[in-house]
Amino acid sequence: MDIAQSAAQVKAASRKLAALGADAKNDILRAIARALDARRDEILRANNDDYARSETEKLAAPLLKRLKFDDAKIRDVIDGIESLVKLPDPNGKTLLSTELDTGLELYRVSCPIGVIGIIFESRPDALVQISTLCLKSGNGVLLKGGAEARETNRTLARIIAEASIAAGAPEGWIALLETRDDVNAILSLDKSIDLIIPRGSNEFVRYIMDHTRIPVMGHADGICHLYIDEHADIDMAVRIAVDSKTQYVAVCNAMETLLVHREIARDFLPKLKAAYDEKHVTIVGCERTRAVIDAEVATEDDWRTEYLDYKVSILVVDSPDAAIDHINAYGSGHTDSIVTSDSAVASQFLDRVDSGNVFWNCSTRFSDGFKYGFGAEVGISTSKLHARGPVGLEGLVSYKYILLGHGQIADDYATRKSSFTHRPLNKDFQVK
Amino acid sequence: MDIAQSAAQVKAASRKLAALGADAKNDILRAIARALDARRDEILRANNDDYARSETEKLAAPLLKRLKFDDAKIRDVIDGIESLVKLPDPNGKTLLSTELDTGLELYRVSCPIGVIGIIFESRPDALVQISTLCLKSGNGVLLKGGAEARETNRTLARIIAEASIAAGAPEGWIALLETRDDVNAILSLDKSIDLIIPRGSNEFVRYIMDHTRIPVMGHADGICHLYIDEHADIDMAVRIAVDSKTQYVAVCNAMETLLVHREIARDFLPKLKAAYDEKHVTIVGCERTRAVIDAEVATEDDWRTEYLDYKVSILVVDSPDAAIDHINAYGSGHTDSIVTSDSAVASQFLDRVDSGNVFWNCSTRFSDGFKYGFGAEVGISTSKLHARGPVGLEGLVSYKYILLGHGQIADDYATRKSSFTHRPLNKDFQVK
Repeated sequence: MDIAQSAAQVKAASRKLAALGADAKNDILRAIARALDARRDEILRANNDDYARSETEKLAAPLLKRLKFDDAKIRDVIDGIESLVKLPDPNGKTLLSTELDTGLELYRVSCPIGVIGIIFESRPDALVQISTLCLKSGNGVLLKGGAEARETNRTLARIIAEASIAAGAPEGWIALLETRDDVNAILSLDKSIDLIIPRGSNEFVRYIMDHTRIPVMGHADGICHLYIDEHADIDMAVRIAVDSKTQYVAVCNAMETLLVHREIARDFLPKLKAAYDEKHVTIVGCERTRAVIDAEVATEDDWRTEYLDYKVSILVVDSPDAAIDHINAYGSGHTDSIVTSDSAVASQFLDRVDSGNVFWNCSTRFSDGFKYGFGAEVGISTSKLHARGPVGLEGLVSYKYILLGHGQIADDYATRKSSFTHRPLNKDFQVK
Repeated sequence: MDIAQSAAQVKAASRKLAALGADAKNDILRAIARALDARRDEILRANNDDYARSETEKLAAPLLKRLKFDDAKIRDVIDGIESLVKLPDPNGKTLLSTELDTGLELYRVSCPIGVIGIIFESRPDALVQISTLCLKSGNGVLLKGGAEARETNRTLARIIAEASIAAGAPEGWIALLETRDDVNAILSLDKSIDLIIPRGSNEFVRYIMDHTRIPVMGHADGICHLYIDEHADIDMAVRIAVDSKTQYVAVCNAMETLLVHREIARDFLPKLKAAYDEKHVTIVGCERTRAVIDAEVATEDDWRTEYLDYKVSILVVDSPDAAIDHINAYGSGHTDSIVTSDSAVASQFLDRVDSGNVFWNCSTRFSDGFKYGFGAEVGISTSKLHARGPVGLEGLVSYKYILLGHGQIADDYATRKSSFTHRPLNKDFQVK
């Protein structure tokens, strides 16, 4: 079977999956969790094979680390499935209800998107996480993993497919493409794949975004900013700057560039420097920064760089407007925060910074589906269409309009024999 | 200035536009309406030039008809602007509010998308309609019209730009590309254009969808179906079939293929044929259709054809499932309706037909933003991401997450010094 046939099969199965109720899908999720638990030895064996082979092939250390799928990781994905079961079904929600005329009722109801393409590097846990999120939201999945994890991916996909189908999922709702298949083949299936979710390095995600017409949910870079305004509480500013940079450096919502108003630079920067020195943070800065504290020279490239490391770039700016303009020019639309006690300045910042997450007086590290209380996170999107920012299960659903009539025809309204009432119904969709 | 520079200028202006309040935008819209009214002679003169040149150049009659921009069309677009003024601002709506912890409040607030690329053939009214919808929703616009309407488009864009900027809109929020610029240049500007709205023939829209990575809001085909179930009221079925096909044949929500359950075909088809004969509808049908009524032979191609004419294809099916499968295989995801008195069958149909609009016992002709009561229609989308079905002003907005804190840092939650409350706030976003 070629890739297009696989995708067509997933599409057909996704329509049956969409018809399953919340309880049926939760039963299937529980069956998957049980199977992962029961067949843990199979998974560990496959992962050991991948790991040994990748070591021989001298896979880079960070990739090797992400490839590891041990008992703890199995526990994590099972826990993830169990919390997913507890979340409400994102489908079948009535989002709008309007009486168009007596006996002619319009409803907007959430429904699955269809087929999600999941393309991931290394980490096999992404396979389990995203495919179970898709199942919960009623979507079929076409998976494409990296060659380094081929045995683990095959084992996980087989276990999920077997357990889910035995528990009532439609045959073919999940398909793993063979590793020899080109990733570009998936990227061209815009007739059968509705959405692609990539998981991997920034370069990997950027490649996928740049080589497909299928909508991609995700973000390539997280160039996040923290702006310390003239009217900032300096202790608060230092605390937030330390947390935003160092609480976890390898994540997309870590701050990469710190902007400082020129009027506060002389007071703030030395205190910041002392705090960063304790955490061994390397500082690169503009000339005005270097006039106050020791720092390496920042180049134009630094303002566009996501270090993902104990390194920060610092720029002194003349005004809040200059900070906002810098963020809109160099940022990635991910997360940007301001520290100020001036609410008018804060309001300007929150309004004009064109990012998915804009914060006032708190760390950039809060932009995250779990911290936001969504219960699950599909990913963080820097797109402005469909879902933006941290995306929960609702990012995996679409909606359809349902119109229930009693024989109404449009001509009666065109000829003014009938007229529209357009009255809000405030009721849930139901077929009587 | 090249196209990329124009787009960058629109992007910069769009950020200022986004900061305008509802009243300011309504004042600008009124100023545009007044200017179109006052400078009507200029518009008519430009349009006469285009029309005369296009006649000489032997432009096809339907395009020539759509090119005409007369007093009635000017009245229409002014009326459109006046109703737009009355609609609520789609921005600044609080879509979600959650207390993450005491003094740490999360809001999801609607905001403009950014820059909309409008690409249209012939009809100059599309220029006015869509650019004013964009203004109302706070988005910058980059326009590209067809060569046949170049004088009309230049005049309209100049009037809109001058009137809006004099009334307070930021310089550069609207830009018309020169006709000599290639449409493909716009399609490649995925860094500065957030969304493309095409207006023109199906082939034109299809070309745009197939040649850009920028999200496109629209639909190429409207292959809509009406399924007459075994348990249908025959008079109602005939009335809906006539309306769906003939009330206005040239529109995307007109029905193209009629599906009939085999058990009702013998009773229903002769009555339908009599009604269609009165309207001079040409019928092509499958063998089982032709066994009951006179009809030309339908080929495989007919099931994929949008006639936009007094022509219909008819297929007799064995079951509701066969009807649903046919629609999902051959339809365009636009609008599909069922006539039945069996609510279980209706429920199956509404659930399993994968289209933006699914109807029960009414005409396909109801899928329309105005009929749905949206007050304005940006277009009809057959995409399943972002906006689906008839799209009102809300299809032109995105949202951002705003987090208001008092110095909170993520590390306090990682170390369990603090914990999240995730309590719904049910209040509107406001900076105190």
